[in-house]
Amino acid sequence: MSFDRLITKIREMKNPTVVGLDPKLAYVPSYIQKTYMDVDGESLKAASRAIFRFNQEIIDAICDIVPAIKPQAAYYEMYGHHGIKTLERTIRYAKLKGMFVITDGKRNDIGATMEAYTAAHLGTTMVGENECTPFGADALTVNGYLGSDGINPLLRTCKEHDKGIFVLVKTSNPSSGELQDRLIDGVPVYAIMGDMCEAWGREQIGQYGYSSVGAVVGATYPEQLRELRARLPHTMFLVPGYGAQGGGAAGVAGAFDANGLGAIVNSSRAIMCAYQKEGCDEHEFAQAARREAIRMREDLTSYIDIK
Amino acid sequence: MSFDRLITKIREMKNPTVVGLDPKLAYVPSYIQKTYMDVDGESLKAASRAIFRFNQEIIDAICDIVPAIKPQAAYYEMYGHHGIKTLERTIRYAKLKGMFVITDGKRNDIGATMEAYTAAHLGTTMVGENECTPFGADALTVNGYLGSDGINPLLRTCKEHDKGIFVLVKTSNPSSGELQDRLIDGVPVYAIMGDMCEAWGREQIGQYGYSSVGAVVGATYPEQLRELRARLPHTMFLVPGYGAQGGGAAGVAGAFDANGLGAIVNSSRAIMCAYQKEGCDEHEFAQAARREAIRMREDLTSYIDIK
Repeated sequence: MSFDRLITKIREMKNPTVVGLDPKLAYVPSYIQKTYMDVDGESLKAASRAIFRFNQEIIDAICDIVPAIKPQAAYYEMYGHHGIKTLERTIRYAKLKGMFVITDGKRNDIGATMEAYTAAHLGTTMVGENECTPFGADALTVNGYLGSDGINPLLRTCKEHDKGIFVLVKTSNPSSGELQDRLIDGVPVYAIMGDMCEAWGREQIGQYGYSSVGAVVGATYPEQLRELRARLPHTMFLVPGYGAQGGGAAGVAGAFDANGLGAIVNSSRAIMCAYQKEGCDEHEFAQAARREAIRMREDLTSYIDIK
Repeated sequence: MSFDRLITKIREMKNPTVVGLDPKLAYVPSYIQKTYMDVDGESLKAASRAIFRFNQEIIDAICDIVPAIKPQAAYYEMYGHHGIKTLERTIRYAKLKGMFVITDGKRNDIGATMEAYTAAHLGTTMVGENECTPFGADALTVNGYLGSDGINPLLRTCKEHDKGIFVLVKTSNPSSGELQDRLIDGVPVYAIMGDMCEAWGREQIGQYGYSSVGAVVGATYPEQLRELRARLPHTMFLVPGYGAQGGGAAGVAGAFDANGLGAIVNSSRAIMCAYQKEGCDEHEFAQAARREAIRMREDLTSYIDIK
């Protein structure tokens, strides 16, 4: 029932935004990079520490107006285990500040291996008698190509630890249709995957009518957003592709239900790099991120009436 | 053209086996666990160090008779950044010993994010002027649900750094058919994904006729293995599900071409836990792993004639 916590935050803040923390090193102001490279050289360790500082200041600047962050695992893995340490610390810090954390990992596997991913990202790992929490996010994005064997281990943890998942349904990229739009008995693959989300979530429906199994549906396909909103009444949507990828607030509105709920819209680069777009002093990067987060909230809520 | 290196090793050793290193802590002999927990307590750090030692001894015991290892990322992520450090060290050690390393991560995303995964696992990350290698595997498993946008960034790195990928086509688990067996214009989804692999690999075909884009096809579906071998003449197969999951050597034979090439068969638990099955002293775990690797090689080559 994890999405109850997320939806409650969205209602309190009147803001259905999640800020993607996909921190390429080039996004990090040079004075921060220098601080760490002066100590550890041009290393993966220095880069990872600079990125943590960057994330931390953005979290400080937005945590009272944005309900959630979505760190993208790829941008941490590219710095090796130092980057993964920054991912751990970013999640922990955001949770300390009261934010809901969605790790964007698009993980997928079967059986015992999927249990290992689940333990890593949402659950706990036993070492002897000691129950450790490796990452401790609130939700994880996953890929359903392998079917129920890849999803069932997640469902158990969602129930026991009050967590959620978002399954890739219709992704925001231009080539998503190569498989996802193909028809099976007259129904596109993305709708079949959506129906599977409804089925997987059936036993875990929360107070707002949404289950712990959500779906990723891109802002760049407004028609499919509307179609899937009607087809999947218990499935919370995570909507990437707003802004940088070309999806606008008008199109995104179709992802929401009559109460203005049921979806959360992601923005990454536009917020992280707001200081570059504004052309302000790089020391003001966090306040620029806040200004852009406010602009996005106003844009979304001019189309969506959250009840 | 990366699979040339792998196929050459397979021919030299007359062994189409990859050993999966999916090291649950319970697989690690208790004397090794104790060595590290005496120092670092029942922690993720101690567990990760114990696992590295376990991997290292298995690699030492098999590297002259087995061409490749396949570490499964999930079993390292479940120990947080300490586990990821063990993944890095395991890859580095296996490569030092001359082995071909396939990271089983089933990664997937689009555009710049997929570039980040590619940099992480197969390529390099720039920090200032310094070109760093986070993981440095030879190949990576990936999920093609997002279409070409998720594969193209990998193809560039495969070409430039002599690497390979294996795309999930027909997975070994019981529920793989929920999506993968559904028909699109009379053709199952797995065959459509297989055709995409042939198309993605078209420009990168090596000396043995196989491209740098391989496919994952489960040993548990021998009919589909045979069908896909005929349908995808330039696609190298990574075949999980032999042994523990119920696939036998007779069925697996259909994955190979007339020269006994074109596939590599994975075994994980049967080799890692051979000492438990044998009931020998746990100090002999690495020699037991070698005995099981030899048994598997004999089993496979009684059906497959490598030319």
